[in-house]
Amino acid sequence: MVEERKKLDHHIRVITPLVTESFRSDHELQGLQRPGLRISQATIQTGPASIESEFDEALSLPGTIGAALAAQRDGVNALVIDCMGDPAVNACREVVDIPVLGPGTTSMHIAALLSLRFSVVTVLASVVPMIWNLARIAGLADRMASVRAIEVPVLEIEADPARLRESLARESELAIRQDGAHGIVLGCTGFFGCAEALSAALRERKLDVPVIDPVPATIRFAAALLEGGLAQSRITYPPPRRKQLKGYDLRLP
Amino acid sequence: MVEERKKLDHHIRVITPLVTESFRSDHELQGLQRPGLRISQATIQTGPASIESEFDEALSLPGTIGAALAAQRDGVNALVIDCMGDPAVNACREVVDIPVLGPGTTSMHIAALLSLRFSVVTVLASVVPMIWNLARIAGLADRMASVRAIEVPVLEIEADPARLRESLARESELAIRQDGAHGIVLGCTGFFGCAEALSAALRERKLDVPVIDPVPATIRFAAALLEGGLAQSRITYPPPRRKQLKGYDLRLP
Amino acid sequence: MVEERKKLDHHIRVITPLVTESFRSDHELQGLQRPGLRISQATIQTGPASIESEFDEALSLPGTIGAALAAQRDGVNALVIDCMGDPAVNACREVVDIPVLGPGTTSMHIAALLSLRFSVVTVLASVVPMIWNLARIAGLADRMASVRAIEVPVLEIEADPARLRESLARESELAIRQDGAHGIVLGCTGFFGCAEALSAALRERKLDVPVIDPVPATIRFAAALLEGGLAQSRITYPPPRRKQLKGYDLRLP
Amino acid sequence: MVEERKKLDHHIRVITPLVTESFRSDHELQGLQRPGLRISQATIQTGPASIESEFDEALSLPGTIGAALAAQRDGVNALVIDCMGDPAVNACREVVDIPVLGPGTTSMHIAALLSLRFSVVTVLASVVPMIWNLARIAGLADRMASVRAIEVPVLEIEADPARLRESLARESELAIRQDGAHGIVLGCTGFFGCAEALSAALRERKLDVPVIDPVPATIRFAAALLEGGLAQSRITYPPPRRKQLKGYDLRLP
Amino acid sequence: MVEERKKLDHHIRVITPLVTESFRSDHELQGLQRPGLRISQATIQTGPASIESEFDEALSLPGTIGAALAAQRDGVNALVIDCMGDPAVNACREVVDIPVLGPGTTSMHIAALLSLRFSVVTVLASVVPMIWNLARIAGLADRMASVRAIEVPVLEIEADPARLRESLARESELAIRQDGAHGIVLGCTGFFGCAEALSAALRERKLDVPVIDPVPATIRFAAALLEGGLAQSRITYPPPRRKQLKGYDLRLP
Amino acid sequence: MVEERKKLDHHIRVITPLVTESFRSDHELQGLQRPGLRISQATIQTGPASIESEFDEALSLPGTIGAALAAQRDGVNALVIDCMGDPAVNACREVVDIPVLGPGTTSMHIAALLSLRFSVVTVLASVVPMIWNLARIAGLADRMASVRAIEVPVLEIEADPARLRESLARESELAIRQDGAHGIVLGCTGFFGCAEALSAALRERKLDVPVIDPVPATIRFAAALLEGGLAQSRITYPPPRRKQLKGYDLRLP
Repeated sequence: MVEERKKLDHHIRVITPLVTESFRSDHELQGLQRPGLRISQATIQTGPASIESEFDEALSLPGTIGAALAAQRDGVNALVIDCMGDPAVNACREVVDIPVLGPGTTSMHIAALLSLRFSVVTVLASVVPMIWNLARIAGLADRMASVRAIEVPVLEIEADPARLRESLARESELAIRQDGAHGIVLGCTGFFGCAEALSAALRERKLDVPVIDPVPATIRFAAALLEGGLAQSRITYPPPRRKQLKGYDLRLP
Repeated sequence: MVEERKKLDHHIRVITPLVTESFRSDHELQGLQRPGLRISQATIQTGPASIESEFDEALSLPGTIGAALAAQRDGVNALVIDCMGDPAVNACREVVDIPVLGPGTTSMHIAALLSLRFSVVTVLASVVPMIWNLARIAGLADRMASVRAIEVPVLEIEADPARLRESLARESELAIRQDGAHGIVLGCTGFFGCAEALSAALRERKLDVPVIDPVPATIRFAAALLEGGLAQSRITYPPPRRKQLKGYDLRLP
Repeated sequence: MVEERKKLDHHIRVITPLVTESFRSDHELQGLQRPGLRISQATIQTGPASIESEFDEALSLPGTIGAALAAQRDGVNALVIDCMGDPAVNACREVVDIPVLGPGTTSMHIAALLSLRFSVVTVLASVVPMIWNLARIAGLADRMASVRAIEVPVLEIEADPARLRESLARESELAIRQDGAHGIVLGCTGFFGCAEALSAALRERKLDVPVIDPVPATIRFAAALLEGGLAQSRITYPPPRRKQLKGYDLRLP
Repeated sequence: MVEERKKLDHHIRVITPLVTESFRSDHELQGLQRPGLRISQATIQTGPASIESEFDEALSLPGTIGAALAAQRDGVNALVIDCMGDPAVNACREVVDIPVLGPGTTSMHIAALLSLRFSVVTVLASVVPMIWNLARIAGLADRMASVRAIEVPVLEIEADPARLRESLARESELAIRQDGAHGIVLGCTGFFGCAEALSAALRERKLDVPVIDPVPATIRFAAALLEGGLAQSRITYPPPRRKQLKGYDLRLP
Repeated sequence: MVEERKKLDHHIRVITPLVTESFRSDHELQGLQRPGLRISQATIQTGPASIESEFDEALSLPGTIGAALAAQRDGVNALVIDCMGDPAVNACREVVDIPVLGPGTTSMHIAALLSLRFSVVTVLASVVPMIWNLARIAGLADRMASVRAIEVPVLEIEADPARLRESLARESELAIRQDGAHGIVLGCTGFFGCAEALSAALRERKLDVPVIDPVPATIRFAAALLEGGLAQSRITYPPPRRKQLKGYDLRLP
Repeated sequence: MVEERKKLDHHIRVITPLVTESFRSDHELQGLQRPGLRISQATIQTGPASIESEFDEALSLPGTIGAALAAQRDGVNALVIDCMGDPAVNACREVVDIPVLGPGTTSMHIAALLSLRFSVVTVLASVVPMIWNLARIAGLADRMASVRAIEVPVLEIEADPARLRESLARESELAIRQDGAHGIVLGCTGFFGCAEALSAALRERKLDVPVIDPVPATIRFAAALLEGGLAQSRITYPPPRRKQLKGYDLRLP
């Protein structure tokens, strides 16, 4: 009875590691709520407008860690970092006690579970190496058929919806027919909501494969972890030793 | 609104690929239900009393496939096969349209997401090769530190609970301290419910690692897939061509 | 002297894991006999007409195991399972004492021994994932350049010999020129006898590579194992524990 | 003649990604200068006192990138980041035109070139996962026999030189005798200067293996790259697109 | 009929890449002959007394190639190089048209076919890296549990048969119990004939695993290749272009 | 002071493992000298005119080892073997105490350090397998996108400089655009000096990637090792045991 109630109170926060408030609308996330599962969102206060390089990602880390600490203070139960590069996921896993998930690695594992081989279709060629490095760390590089880019910057994803749909469908089709992918991972969290249309477009081309929408998929996976009482390993991610952190005003737990 | 209702009606069936009715109690599974998620269970009618070898697993496949087809006819939304060897998972993925998950591969991916390296602690040495082969197929063999056996047969797991707890704790501790594991996967679905006590025992030994209880973890992962409308790739798992299946009376969809 | 005689009495049985009696003619196998080496064949009594999916394969296992047990009772010295998916090989290795070989894995090892990289040219796209999974288990996925399908069902292989030859040559040539293969494995045991013509066709295209005909190659490898007194590891493949096997009337040794 | 002069003017800057001024003495680095090779050093202004976790590393990135940009403005020819976690190496490779090297990955490649297998002997267990992840990205995880920690914090390395020497020798010996290492990488740049004594201690134990001192080795490798006119790939590390970087006052080139 | 006769005339030559005539007795090899299979042996004229290092192996190559060319001129049908380092195998595969096999790589593939994982038990620690490199090239390094040495030089193998048997049994037992091997490869062709006693010793210790005797196993595999008309790929091993070969008087075909 | 002087006296010898005196001009190497670094060169006395096969390479080994021993007697401080197949590198590492480097493996490690993935552009298809095998041993096969050949024999490289430049540019461009390479390794030491023009040609095509010129890169790496007092592991490369070496008059140290 008590356990049932606990389940009904899970609160997952999506931390968008960007300073662009408009990137992630509440509306999108609210659709993922269900009785017992509350989803909130936070945008970071210092950092890049978008993440399209390792440089952008580096500048997103302190703000993201700060938001993670704030979330834990707020009583949040789990965190999802809203970027396919999984920025600050490992650092946050060390500083908070609650589960922290990145949509990049999580989506790759889901895709690997559902298909022989998958491809990631992302925004720009500049993030391709980051995605390969995530797959190498995950041990899934052999399962990843390719990483393809549609060459649309993150903040222009919504500029031309028809072109976006067409680009995603074209690169996904090439990933399947030329690279041997049997599943597709949307390679930018800015593609939120595009999976259904892409699936339909691929089915029209007689290509019936799972299309992973990273943020919803990772939120649902986080909810599953919470229900099971699971979190990251404290041996892999031990709490950091206290020390001087000049220039940062982070309130560690 | 309609979508919300659909979510509230998800029905996952756990197919126990054994003829031993007492192996899986309803009680265990009912605790995993929540509003909108119904869990049912079926035991197969022909097959082995327990699975402790590739031979046992082979004999479980036809019955398991039959149970999967029956489940789809019953309007079930997803299937979880109740054995760490993931018997018939690939075959069932071909013959039904609903998602099918095996706890072996699923648990390995979850453990890999949460830790640098994990170990599987299972029943008997005879199943160790099967588990390594699943990890090789998943691409996670490099993430698996070891597979250890407590040398208790499946149907004797409940015979001596104190000894079971001690054996699981001892082998898990060795997996962590000697083999370098940072996470533990319970290596038999007969260990259902043992994760909490094992976690506690490891924390007493100052070893704070995730302990994956395969069936609950896989059910929750299946629920997450259902909410996201995801299923296995139809390119990896195409529907089988019709043909003579002598000696089997399977009603394919 | 005694040892010499024993060698002269080796008896290998090819178990065709299909109910299609016409699939494997005695004539084909008799050509592989030599003084001291007898080859017999058995077709299973329950199972699929052909194996073109994991589903088909699953239904072939009990019949194949039964045939393996019968073969051992008949005094046979080694078994070769007549399907590239290596169905029931692991299970049979547990239940009998004699060596059991599958042509899928065996051919991959032979091809890896003779070439930098090899491709498998098989019947239908539906079996491609099974072949990749075998290669992953074998550790040879990095040595396998590609798996290509000619899109001819197993039971239609003999329907149009000219088209078959042309399809095999075309896909093999693409495997070599585009995928980087230096050797070819025929990817269905139904291609028995096609290797010579395919080799000739490739040599005409200036492509001089080994073409592995899986069943003859595996029979010869089995004979070599018998001469050396070798069999599968009893640690990897221990005899199954006795237990209830409901619905199966298998006479275990 | 002109080319000869250019060579004589190479200037490498070591960026210590810590705010601890005393961590890296000028004296240590000056010994690595030679005619034509000038070495300077910079400590960052904001960041952690030491790096012993992913969290510490994350906070070191912005300051390190700032120092890299300043170095390029100063006309420096190459950068070496003074931490085995290679913090900000990828980000810096994007924002500057000059070669940037991290001692972690560089030392692993050198060790792999000189030995069948190597181990890293580092400060604390908390950095072990970071080092494994670097090796996985580098593709050298199979060449790394183990990562061992002496359990001395970074800022206490110099506290007890005798104990340090003994700890390094003991763990290195275990790495060789138990884990199969044929080479040793010092796993913290705070061990600067310890290689010679460790080599001697190992030779006394009849273990004649290369001991890589990461900072000197990486500086020399950077000098070699400069002489050859080599730098990181601009396809792997393209210059970041300009965008808002709130809270950061970085002068991009 | 004609084909049958051809089979009866297969002639395999074992080339011992040493100048030590006594290393390989005719008697040992004659026991491997059978009707239709003739086995001859040649010792090289220039080269090392034994191969225990890459240096020794390097000096064995020209003589071995010369012996291979002579064998082809003699009408031999296949070659087996009598050393676990597989010296000159690749070079010989280029210069002759007949199949050439090395016992190192061949034995590893056989062991991988029969067991989850295998170990090699060899003479001296100095050859351990060579064996690992062969396994890496073969793609089987993940299948090789360990390489262990008994520390007996090649030419002293026969000096103390009791000690030899005990050393082989001890290291094989450790390979199985500590390293996880399920199969054993004798790691020097000088151990010819030791497999049976080692198997018996391991069975006494309740360890029933295949023990591969490399030369007999490779001869039998070569015979199997000959019967199947198979040889190495001419794309992987093309005939060398003619050119000056100063100091060598080799009669290329 | 003394150490400074020692550094100023480093002497690296390039051993060209060919009997073609004209292959390597002094002029090329002298440009790599700098104060404190002397570079000499030796051509071997017995061996092939060029290395384009494993056969050629095999015949180059004894002469190369002899030249290595002579170099050590001459007081040389390090050796670079002048062929991308790294002939005799392992053997020389055993017989001399000074560092020995091969440009094949060294260049691959450098390319891996600078780019996500690299390709090797070499002379003839016949050497492609050798280069893949080197990458497999190095553990870098996953980092190598492709090996491409321009189909120009080694001794004709200088015959048509314009065609050479065009061929190298074309194959490098294909490696980048089709195979996914982010860096290029010149795949024959006969391409010495071609890197600058190739870089320029690629930059004209908007492809800004590192182009590794193997011999200069390896010489500089060797100089870096010397400055650091590093050499190959004596556990991986122990001194060979003394024994009869019939037909060879090598003066081992």
